[in-house]
Amino acid sequence: MANNALPARRARAAAELAGLSVDALLVSHLPNIRYLTGFTGSNGLLILGADARSVLFTDPRYEVQAHEESAMPDCRVRVEKSALLPAAARALRRLARRRTGFEAARIGYRAYTQLAELLDGRPELVPTEGLVERRRMVKSPEEVAAIRESARLNSAALERSLRSVRVGKTTENELAAEIEYQMRRLGAEGPAFDTIVAAGPRAALPHARPTSARICPGALLLIDMGASLRGYASDMTRVLAVGSPRRRHRLFYRAVAEAQQEAVAAVRPGVRAGAIDRTARRALAKRQLDHLFTHSTGHGLGLEIHEPPRLGRKDPTPLAEGMTITVEPGIYLPGDCGIRVEDTVVVTASGCEVLTPTTQELRVL
Amino acid sequence: MANNALPARRARAAAELAGLSVDALLVSHLPNIRYLTGFTGSNGLLILGADARSVLFTDPRYEVQAHEESAMPDCRVRVEKSALLPAAARALRRLARRRTGFEAARIGYRAYTQLAELLDGRPELVPTEGLVERRRMVKSPEEVAAIRESARLNSAALERSLRSVRVGKTTENELAAEIEYQMRRLGAEGPAFDTIVAAGPRAALPHARPTSARICPGALLLIDMGASLRGYASDMTRVLAVGSPRRRHRLFYRAVAEAQQEAVAAVRPGVRAGAIDRTARRALAKRQLDHLFTHSTGHGLGLEIHEPPRLGRKDPTPLAEGMTITVEPGIYLPGDCGIRVEDTVVVTASGCEVLTPTTQELRVL
Repeated sequence: MANNALPARRARAAAELAGLSVDALLVSHLPNIRYLTGFTGSNGLLILGADARSVLFTDPRYEVQAHEESAMPDCRVRVEKSALLPAAARALRRLARRRTGFEAARIGYRAYTQLAELLDGRPELVPTEGLVERRRMVKSPEEVAAIRESARLNSAALERSLRSVRVGKTTENELAAEIEYQMRRLGAEGPAFDTIVAAGPRAALPHARPTSARICPGALLLIDMGASLRGYASDMTRVLAVGSPRRRHRLFYRAVAEAQQEAVAAVRPGVRAGAIDRTARRALAKRQLDHLFTHSTGHGLGLEIHEPPRLGRKDPTPLAEGMTITVEPGIYLPGDCGIRVEDTVVVTASGCEVLTPTTQELRVL
Repeated sequence: MANNALPARRARAAAELAGLSVDALLVSHLPNIRYLTGFTGSNGLLILGADARSVLFTDPRYEVQAHEESAMPDCRVRVEKSALLPAAARALRRLARRRTGFEAARIGYRAYTQLAELLDGRPELVPTEGLVERRRMVKSPEEVAAIRESARLNSAALERSLRSVRVGKTTENELAAEIEYQMRRLGAEGPAFDTIVAAGPRAALPHARPTSARICPGALLLIDMGASLRGYASDMTRVLAVGSPRRRHRLFYRAVAEAQQEAVAAVRPGVRAGAIDRTARRALAKRQLDHLFTHSTGHGLGLEIHEPPRLGRKDPTPLAEGMTITVEPGIYLPGDCGIRVEDTVVVTASGCEVLTPTTQELRVL
């Protein structure tokens, strides 16, 4: 991209470095590097100076691409034939940095010990936590637009894929393949995560992989899918009835969909992430189903499919306008079915907007 | 799988712990956990005891799956509602371990410091490096069979996909989508990595992403693709001519293909990984093309697409029967083309066997 938003992103992240009394941040987490530089390669290291002058290190495979995506007056690209860490360490010493932050949750123990040895205290290494990730939580209008488009594409891929299903013939694997194919035909880079297509009891495994089992009448079919578009993820889960749904399944489904809608209705700036989780749980508790809800209610998403905040009991992050999150309560009945309803939503000034256009009606295949 | 090979794998890995004077190994790298337990989930931690008694920790999402895949008399499954690291730390203390190894290159700095705090010296933490990865380098006959099948499927997916290409109409993106779709239709879990389809000058970026550019006559088309089948990766690169190839492109292609064949011919037990890289480089140097060869000659593959050994200048690992590696020299001419020829091969008792069935002839689309 080499897009105009990048210098401002770097400047804002750099402005936070002073508060930590560091004169640079060594960024090792690739999505953070992409956020700050536009670089999409799989091998990179970034020195972000407190003066917002940056150096991006990568290897020769990405030479052309890194220059195209990331070289700007305030961001130099350095191509290294050997390991990036020693090159970054040399640069930190040459730039006479005195205290440099590193991403404590985003660097390996071995890499850290190597770096510490190479630097030998000059500069001093200071652990930092989630500095760039916190900046990434609130999306710019352009980022929201990309996620909105990703969610639309995702829903369109579902519609196209469902047309190809022949009940009793199509397998979970085939439908998952069709879904990912349609995403790409529609312009996605690919799925944002491994598509889940799980029929009947297999849907009781919340992270089931598709199998060669055929999609047969009498079961509920769970589809959890997300697209990656210009780097940005969408995420949606829908449950469909294969053949006329049983009464029990209809009731369970309605309970989950209502819990999901209550949780969505609670999303607005200032409410804590954990409160949304409690809303979903309370809604299921009213129907004595909360003990079957075995995961958290959702997560942030953007350049990664799982980002802060986490809509779990303990996350105190206050929601803010521009955050993009999933809301996805579910219940799992071993041996019978799994039901989850998930939308991607963006927090607005007064509440939220659901970005997932697919209906929540229990559709029959 | 919960397959019979697992206890023997655990026993052999456990037998190495005595040499390190540790009574357990905390395994945090998911492919290592999969190798030792069959567990395919995305969240797990494993304590491997020197007595080969193991405990696999995961979260409720994977409860059913972990029991199906991994529970065995010598491997307990523990499902934790909260973070796995504190649970593993408590277990290590309860089991009265005194010195426990951890995977220094496979644990984050933050996770390590948390663990060290939780344990407070009981047990003492001992960094280890590549213990399980070294065991994984040599594949069992069953693993070789999976990789062989993965390579076959990968080649079949290419053949099917090429039939759909309409020169001047099909885009790189569409062909990449078709390739990944065909992999899945043929039974793969999916691609082992993002498929590269790069036409003309874009192929000079060794890790180009497919674009919406149409595949047009006069260019060389580079396709780098791999399937994941029962967890095992294959990897292949082919270059095709779109329309009748230019003389220059034909000569370059032949040079790379010959360098690749010379490197493959040098593969046999006892030869160092670095020597294969030097063979490929020398072959290109004879044609004054080695300066255009900007990456290493190959890599191991198995449960991961990149595993040790690395066929790079400096890797002294002696090749051994049962290792599966790629051999993939390439040359990159900015603004013109990129040419790489890559096969997946298995080291045999007397040399090697190429597992990639696709022809190396320069085909014309």
